Amino acid sequence: MKSLRDIGEDELIRRLIRLVPLDPSPLAGPGDDCAVIDPGPGSALLQLLKTDAMVAGIHFLPDSPPRAVGWKAAARVVSDFAAMGGRPERFLVTLALDPQSQVSWAEELYRGIGDCLAAFDAVLAGGETSSVPAGSAAVISIAATGSVLRERLALRCTGKPGQALFVTGTLGGSLGGKHLSFTPRVVEANWLVSKYHPTAMMDVSDGLAKDLPRLAAASGCGFELDRDSLPVTPGSTVAQALGDGEDFELLFACEEPQAAALSQEWMAVFPDLPLTRIGRLVESGRGEMLEGGWDHFAPQVS
Amino acid sequence: MKSLRDIGEDELIRRLIRLVPLDPSPLAGPGDDCAVIDPGPGSALLQLLKTDAMVAGIHFLPDSPPRAVGWKAAARVVSDFAAMGGRPERFLVTLALDPQSQVSWAEELYRGIGDCLAAFDAVLAGGETSSVPAGSAAVISIAATGSVLRERLALRCTGKPGQALFVTGTLGGSLGGKHLSFTPRVVEANWLVSKYHPTAMMDVSDGLAKDLPRLAAASGCGFELDRDSLPVTPGSTVAQALGDGEDFELLFACEEPQAAALSQEWMAVFPDLPLTRIGRLVESGRGEMLEGGWDHFAPQVS
Repeated sequence: MKSLRDIGEDELIRRLIRLVPLDPSPLAGPGDDCAVIDPGPGSALLQLLKTDAMVAGIHFLPDSPPRAVGWKAAARVVSDFAAMGGRPERFLVTLALDPQSQVSWAEELYRGIGDCLAAFDAVLAGGETSSVPAGSAAVISIAATGSVLRERLALRCTGKPGQALFVTGTLGGSLGGKHLSFTPRVVEANWLVSKYHPTAMMDVSDGLAKDLPRLAAASGCGFELDRDSLPVTPGSTVAQALGDGEDFELLFACEEPQAAALSQEWMAVFPDLPLTRIGRLVESGRGEMLEGGWDHFAPQVS
Repeated sequence: MKSLRDIGEDELIRRLIRLVPLDPSPLAGPGDDCAVIDPGPGSALLQLLKTDAMVAGIHFLPDSPPRAVGWKAAARVVSDFAAMGGRPERFLVTLALDPQSQVSWAEELYRGIGDCLAAFDAVLAGGETSSVPAGSAAVISIAATGSVLRERLALRCTGKPGQALFVTGTLGGSLGGKHLSFTPRVVEANWLVSKYHPTAMMDVSDGLAKDLPRLAAASGCGFELDRDSLPVTPGSTVAQALGDGEDFELLFACEEPQAAALSQEWMAVFPDLPLTRIGRLVESGRGEMLEGGWDHFAPQVS
């Protein structure tokens, strides 16, 4: 009898999605940041759907400030809409809490969710509350709808060998605080898809070591990573930049001829947020491998 | 410092929704079965959004057959779409599981979700997996989109004094097995909204004692309940029919002049599913009160 830990998260998902009816003609693969729904050829907007969860003791600590936890729970989802070139619209919030939890904790959590919704012009459309057995971890599950202009949709499966790879901001050390207070890159992503349509894009949530191979594999490519160029958060190591996760920065590919102009214009438009060229996509089977990053059901090293 | 148990579920929700931006002109109140989104006057269909969660030890037991647990998790959401007169479309499934859980358990769970999606012509659009700390309860959170024809939308807030109240099926004793294997009343609800537009409708998930007062209050009404008429599940008591919950039957109001014809035609169309007139809506402040039903954060009786 195998446990989830024996097979890891990616293999679990591969097994599960074989067992249910799927959209026969999805606009984005099941591994992309959001599901993409086409309302029909007459619609300029595509609908985006996303679900995400945070668990006490995994994504935040019982003594983390609840308002920051609420911000993070909503901002993680907003980051996924950004990664598709879109914007968030309506949120559904599910709280599973111990009945002995403090009302003030739940209220502060909701204030934090509200802060994020207000910041990105989204609204709460519905919710659900449930108890958990005494001693069980609190779970905050957020689903949301968003939208993206049809011609601006950015997927992770459409990169091509030879294209330049970029990442925004700095990587590593998010547990020092950024993981609770990051700003989803909606403004930057919307600028990117309108000016320099990235050929592939995703947000870095499980660490570059996990997410870069995912983007490359989804695009049927390999990759070369220039470790010396990595924008490492001050005080962090290259290993942390690769493996810590929860950076919530944008990782994207663009056509090589656009790369220099993009870098230059970025500095003028977003002078406070670094944009770093970290490597390139190559033919599948070439390039390198990366190990590490966050896996919820990682096989135990023993 | 108050705990969730001190204030109960309905008061918690009232407090939380004040803390976040809400849809300025919602088509359904925050307490309805689903959120309702109007894509614009040109659209014959309204979009429905719903989120729901199941927790091990609360909604199912660790040794409940996982395929039935999966069916239930999806069918609860389908039931909410039925209660609005609509149909389910796309599902987002979030699993928060102990890494030591068996892969076969998760696979059976997903098979059960797939059974329900296939039965109601819906698809999986996305999902999320997370670990929970060792010993914490598993949480299955499902969000979904659905749709309803604009002129067939059934809300719970639109009943009027004098209208007849009906309930489908039998109530009580769901823990004997029905709670894991019920059939959401999609076919029946769709027939109802096309033929005898109910003036108010919801599904009975927390027990009639909890849900009938909710429907009446949402409609600004009181109610009179004819206890002798209650369709009690064989082997259950009237108290169980009122308080057990998880019946997943339809509760609706209709214009008094339509009531007799509706009852008669129902028997011909759905001979295997009882439809019972259980009372009527009255002016607010009149009628009776009911206590009981399921509250996740019920104040403790001590």
